[in-house]
Amino acid sequence: MSDIVAALREALGDRVLTDADTLDAHRRDYWALAEIRDLLGRGAPRPRAVVRAISTEDVAQTLRICRAERTSVIPFGGASGVCGAIEANPNSIVLSTRGLNGLVRLNDQNLTATFRAGTLGIEAENRVRQGGLTIGHWPQSVEVSTVGGWVATRAAGQYSTAYGSIEDILLALEVVLPDGSVLRTRETPRAAAGPDLRQIFMGSEGTLGVITEVTFSLRPLPEASRGQAFHFASFEAGIEAVRRLMRVGWRPPVIRMYDANESQRSFRDWCPEGRNLMLLLHEGPASAVNAQIDAVAALTVTGGGEQTDATCVDNWLEHRNKVPSFREMNERGLVVDTIEVACTWDLVPRLYDEVTRSLREVPGIIVASAHSSHSYRSGTNLYFTFAARVEERERMPEVYRECWERTMRACVAVGAGIAHHHGIGRVRRSRLVDEVGDTGVALLRKLKRALDPDGLLNPGALLPPPGAEER
Amino acid sequence: MSDIVAALREALGDRVLTDADTLDAHRRDYWALAEIRDLLGRGAPRPRAVVRAISTEDVAQTLRICRAERTSVIPFGGASGVCGAIEANPNSIVLSTRGLNGLVRLNDQNLTATFRAGTLGIEAENRVRQGGLTIGHWPQSVEVSTVGGWVATRAAGQYSTAYGSIEDILLALEVVLPDGSVLRTRETPRAAAGPDLRQIFMGSEGTLGVITEVTFSLRPLPEASRGQAFHFASFEAGIEAVRRLMRVGWRPPVIRMYDANESQRSFRDWCPEGRNLMLLLHEGPASAVNAQIDAVAALTVTGGGEQTDATCVDNWLEHRNKVPSFREMNERGLVVDTIEVACTWDLVPRLYDEVTRSLREVPGIIVASAHSSHSYRSGTNLYFTFAARVEERERMPEVYRECWERTMRACVAVGAGIAHHHGIGRVRRSRLVDEVGDTGVALLRKLKRALDPDGLLNPGALLPPPGAEER
Repeated sequence: MSDIVAALREALGDRVLTDADTLDAHRRDYWALAEIRDLLGRGAPRPRAVVRAISTEDVAQTLRICRAERTSVIPFGGASGVCGAIEANPNSIVLSTRGLNGLVRLNDQNLTATFRAGTLGIEAENRVRQGGLTIGHWPQSVEVSTVGGWVATRAAGQYSTAYGSIEDILLALEVVLPDGSVLRTRETPRAAAGPDLRQIFMGSEGTLGVITEVTFSLRPLPEASRGQAFHFASFEAGIEAVRRLMRVGWRPPVIRMYDANESQRSFRDWCPEGRNLMLLLHEGPASAVNAQIDAVAALTVTGGGEQTDATCVDNWLEHRNKVPSFREMNERGLVVDTIEVACTWDLVPRLYDEVTRSLREVPGIIVASAHSSHSYRSGTNLYFTFAARVEERERMPEVYRECWERTMRACVAVGAGIAHHHGIGRVRRSRLVDEVGDTGVALLRKLKRALDPDGLLNPGALLPPPGAEER
Repeated sequence: MSDIVAALREALGDRVLTDADTLDAHRRDYWALAEIRDLLGRGAPRPRAVVRAISTEDVAQTLRICRAERTSVIPFGGASGVCGAIEANPNSIVLSTRGLNGLVRLNDQNLTATFRAGTLGIEAENRVRQGGLTIGHWPQSVEVSTVGGWVATRAAGQYSTAYGSIEDILLALEVVLPDGSVLRTRETPRAAAGPDLRQIFMGSEGTLGVITEVTFSLRPLPEASRGQAFHFASFEAGIEAVRRLMRVGWRPPVIRMYDANESQRSFRDWCPEGRNLMLLLHEGPASAVNAQIDAVAALTVTGGGEQTDATCVDNWLEHRNKVPSFREMNERGLVVDTIEVACTWDLVPRLYDEVTRSLREVPGIIVASAHSSHSYRSGTNLYFTFAARVEERERMPEVYRECWERTMRACVAVGAGIAHHHGIGRVRRSRLVDEVGDTGVALLRKLKRALDPDGLLNPGALLPPPGAEER
């Protein structure tokens, strides 16, 4: 067992770490259930060693050495994922990308910026803002997630309704395949040259390759930026107003529709009790923003919206990345998580009703709420939040599982997609078959075997263990 | 050899055709070189038989039977591809999707429409227009290409600058895999649930599966639609103006920038000799269109553009799908083709110069021109047209190959992408390695082997024969 560490040390020297603090810090991601297990003293084990790669060649060497030794490798970025895609085992090597840091090149004429994969999101965004540009991708995790992680998890940011999700922003990538070979896709605005190879790795959650470099297609910072807000008698009426805006083609980067619970929890100064808040942020050339603001106001008021003070948008912008940690909540006796799913417009009211109703049947439940935050021509996401009071800590994992199971069951019953932007990890892997079908799971397994025949790259994430997908 | 036909007949009855006319009509697609070869009496051979599938199960049965008999299958839609992706051989079965025809369902609330794959583009578009909607995808081939073919070839239409290419319009698909299993992707606006499986088949050119159904994300027909046009002293100045419009975020569905040659060829009534025409079509809510028209006029005039009468846009709309056939041109002693490539903004002037210069060295060349017709934040496409006068018909294939080879060499030298929206087929397959690298070709081969281990689905298209990609 020490052979693998010795072999890695020979190639990578002091970039192979085995001290207790480093191993502890690389056991898992930010999955709520992993937090509970830690609290209960049954947390994920330490890995065998951590490799802190500082070059693409370091990554390739690590993969080659681990393949020769038949040792599993867990790619590790900011570890801000919330679905359990990272969970060490005592024999695995964790491969941290955080030493792959910083800007590689920026081209203002092409609006492109290439970063090494371990760069923190906020650092990448701040770097391009020096030149008056933006990546246009702002997940709540922006201060702790890496740009490579955005791609590996198929992330969506808060401005996605106008600027798209990571698949619309990623122009090119460099990825090390399980056999140590390096794929670099071309920086071309568009190609019809076979299947889009970037897509194999977007959402692969570290199971098909290790992303080492990403190139984003940037935008200039907008000339104008204006908030706008309304409230509605029902969540359904608000969602219908969002649909009508999307249909005509208006595209505010931010359009968030909160149910009455969340409106009261976060915006009581702007929204009367029982009403449902819609919050918008418009960006772009001033004349386009003005035309959009007027059109949205007209359409929304027709749909039953009542305008409220847009300072709630500033309030949201200020507080949007501040949420209490799972640990704080757990220590107060609360089991808490968020579950983001998506569906076409026709299914939204039923999905909202089914999930919140089913969650409210869980003993001790005190929160079962939702908002929509990413909209499309065909539908929107719903971002559910649940919280349950659990007296005995030992029962927390069980209650957590029950809330998830109820939400997933309701999604499948309604016909909704099971994951909008957090990914699959471990929490949803047994439900992947409901999303992509038996043929889809079989196809993903073929892809996995073709690229990683020994199954060494992040085993246990995304794909359920063989056989487990049978219903 | 008659076993396969008998086996197919037993399962599919009179949907298996072997009459000479049907076999003749299913030998090849609309590749210019295939047209020349036909003229020379050395055209593609007839296939063994044509299966005209009328259901997904027909497609699955055909694939299963051919797999059992180790017989190759060539999926065949509108055969309007121009890169040679379809070329029968005497032992192969051609599988036509044209019997898979018509609308399956349309949902006005979700703005979605599902068509069977063999539906002609124009029929699908006309069907959704009955409800005031549009697919927003209008390739020049719209009257002869199928909606499944759009997906299989990774097509882009004339409105792509605002509405995106097929990957932005396709919401879901049904595809039969080489083993006869059927994959149906979910109609969800967005998912983070592993790699996007649709992407494996978009651009696969019939080599990885047979698409049987497609669901599009529609738009309402626009409230307003207005043309606009300018001309510039140089092609480079016009391209720079396009870049500046894209940069700020203006998105006319159509923005076409022609070089001086093409401006004279097609728009001499609107554009003085030596000047370079920019033609725009704006669509959307009236207030948005008006804001955009004004902003574009201001930005473009600052960039050296001179406004001209917008009736040239009507002229283009009227004539855009009328082009002389390759056969007519060949019979007049001309070798003609178009080659669409793409690159980032910084490379456009050099790419334009290198390709047109290199083409002009070909003896007999009479046209070497280009326009840009699909633009992005990071760059644009260039759509080259060449025509050469060739006295001896026997020399036509050689001249054709030389023009292509010169264009591809110039692309690679400059660092441009080799294919924007026509695909790879046979004409570009030896250059695929220049687009995706050795690792990319190896990855595509692994994908092919994983899905189609016997290599029976459309062999010879997209991927070069094994070993041929070495430089």
